[in-house]
Amino acid sequence: MKQSHTHRLRVRYDECDPMGFVHHSQYLCYMEIARTELYRESGGSYAAVEAAGLFVVVLRVDCRYRLPARYDDELDISVQIDRMTAARIEQAYQILRGETLIAEANVTLAVVDSSGRPQRIPDILRDPAGVSKT
Amino acid sequence: MKQSHTHRLRVRYDECDPMGFVHHSQYLCYMEIARTELYRESGGSYAAVEAAGLFVVVLRVDCRYRLPARYDDELDISVQIDRMTAARIEQAYQILRGETLIAEANVTLAVVDSSGRPQRIPDILRDPAGVSKT
Amino acid sequence: MKQSHTHRLRVRYDECDPMGFVHHSQYLCYMEIARTELYRESGGSYAAVEAAGLFVVVLRVDCRYRLPARYDDELDISVQIDRMTAARIEQAYQILRGETLIAEANVTLAVVDSSGRPQRIPDILRDPAGVSKT
Amino acid sequence: MKQSHTHRLRVRYDECDPMGFVHHSQYLCYMEIARTELYRESGGSYAAVEAAGLFVVVLRVDCRYRLPARYDDELDISVQIDRMTAARIEQAYQILRGETLIAEANVTLAVVDSSGRPQRIPDILRDPAGVSKT
Repeated sequence: MKQSHTHRLRVRYDECDPMGFVHHSQYLCYMEIARTELYRESGGSYAAVEAAGLFVVVLRVDCRYRLPARYDDELDISVQIDRMTAARIEQAYQILRGETLIAEANVTLAVVDSSGRPQRIPDILRDPAGVSKT
Repeated sequence: MKQSHTHRLRVRYDECDPMGFVHHSQYLCYMEIARTELYRESGGSYAAVEAAGLFVVVLRVDCRYRLPARYDDELDISVQIDRMTAARIEQAYQILRGETLIAEANVTLAVVDSSGRPQRIPDILRDPAGVSKT
Repeated sequence: MKQSHTHRLRVRYDECDPMGFVHHSQYLCYMEIARTELYRESGGSYAAVEAAGLFVVVLRVDCRYRLPARYDDELDISVQIDRMTAARIEQAYQILRGETLIAEANVTLAVVDSSGRPQRIPDILRDPAGVSKT
Repeated sequence: MKQSHTHRLRVRYDECDPMGFVHHSQYLCYMEIARTELYRESGGSYAAVEAAGLFVVVLRVDCRYRLPARYDDELDISVQIDRMTAARIEQAYQILRGETLIAEANVTLAVVDSSGRPQRIPDILRDPAGVSKT
């Protein structure tokens, strides 16, 4: 499993608010994309995880907004896995425009089944390439 | 079944774009709320329809934008059922701010089951109060 | 200035994700609505604040998600002002469905002018009714 | 000015609804991205157009939904300029997943100034490369 990944994206018009800034809620969607792409880069598919009846849910987001981003900006969304316990995944994020820090965040994830019951973090989320090889 | 309904709502900040206008995609969400509330006013619950394995899907939206709406505006979203055939529901919408026409639209809906197969419009969508009485 | 307010809203279909849950980013929009309505209840208009060239920006959101909310749920979004300094507004939020805690958050706000320069929290945000009386 | 362009994008989790499908309003955002990228491919920058005080607004969207798209699908959003008059731009769109038609639409655009007054379609929107060369 890769421990970090940076995903580049371009800010869309509908993601910006009347101030002309990316709406602060949108960064949570950007971070979700980055962790999905980290998982894809490691050989996994989050769509396949859900098809298997497991769902990654967000327990906590702590996001600090440093400078505004604007329409058409290219942003780099970096995610790093800080820690994986039996029941939690802790990640750190940075959102950058070039060298400029736009926002940073810590996110805690967990896994539930389709009826919402907490699950241990399954092997497929720890090492998707290893699981798919066996 | 009621044939028309008007739902009032207030424009949210995150629904507006850098022009300061409600983003044009947002009106489709407003219209979805109005038809849900029309159905509720008629004694139905769209959440219960989905729980029963039926899903209302949009086949067509034809929306004409007349004047912009802005953050904090109170808008009236009016829906009227124009026609129900065996397989289609045709509705007309008007979005007003006071007496001012903001947008108008025609929307065609159909019903599918959980695997996406087209279904006849069920009685529960034609007369929810009648169905729940029996 | 009122120190707290609870705003009730109903979860919209487009706010929910394939899990059937309210997407975790959406709660930030709900909290923005609640603080706007707290300000309106206190006699202020956030649209008027922006028209005067002042913009309330989010510095930090720390949100803990407790239980999922679903389509058509009625949620109560409670906001309380914890502290106002010269340059910061600190607020605490609870999102409830009846007695059930869905999420809770702390949010830090600041004020900037149209070119993004930090401003002291103006009187109009501290006591809108007092300002409009004079 | 290029007359057509295809933009590939991947469906994001937050763009999908409880049916597991891309929400029907989202296609309007996808089409907005495609026309922005058509304009960029032609040497223009829509951000620069707005910075110059001109705003492209949507007059009409007529969208027919053929088949659902799902989370993580790769979609090709194709835009073609059908007609440009003094005051209108008419475009046709197709949204495809591989060879499968997901949706198609006709969109009519116009241009306004910052106070909302209709403007003639400016040269910068007709031939951005030509304008920037002079």
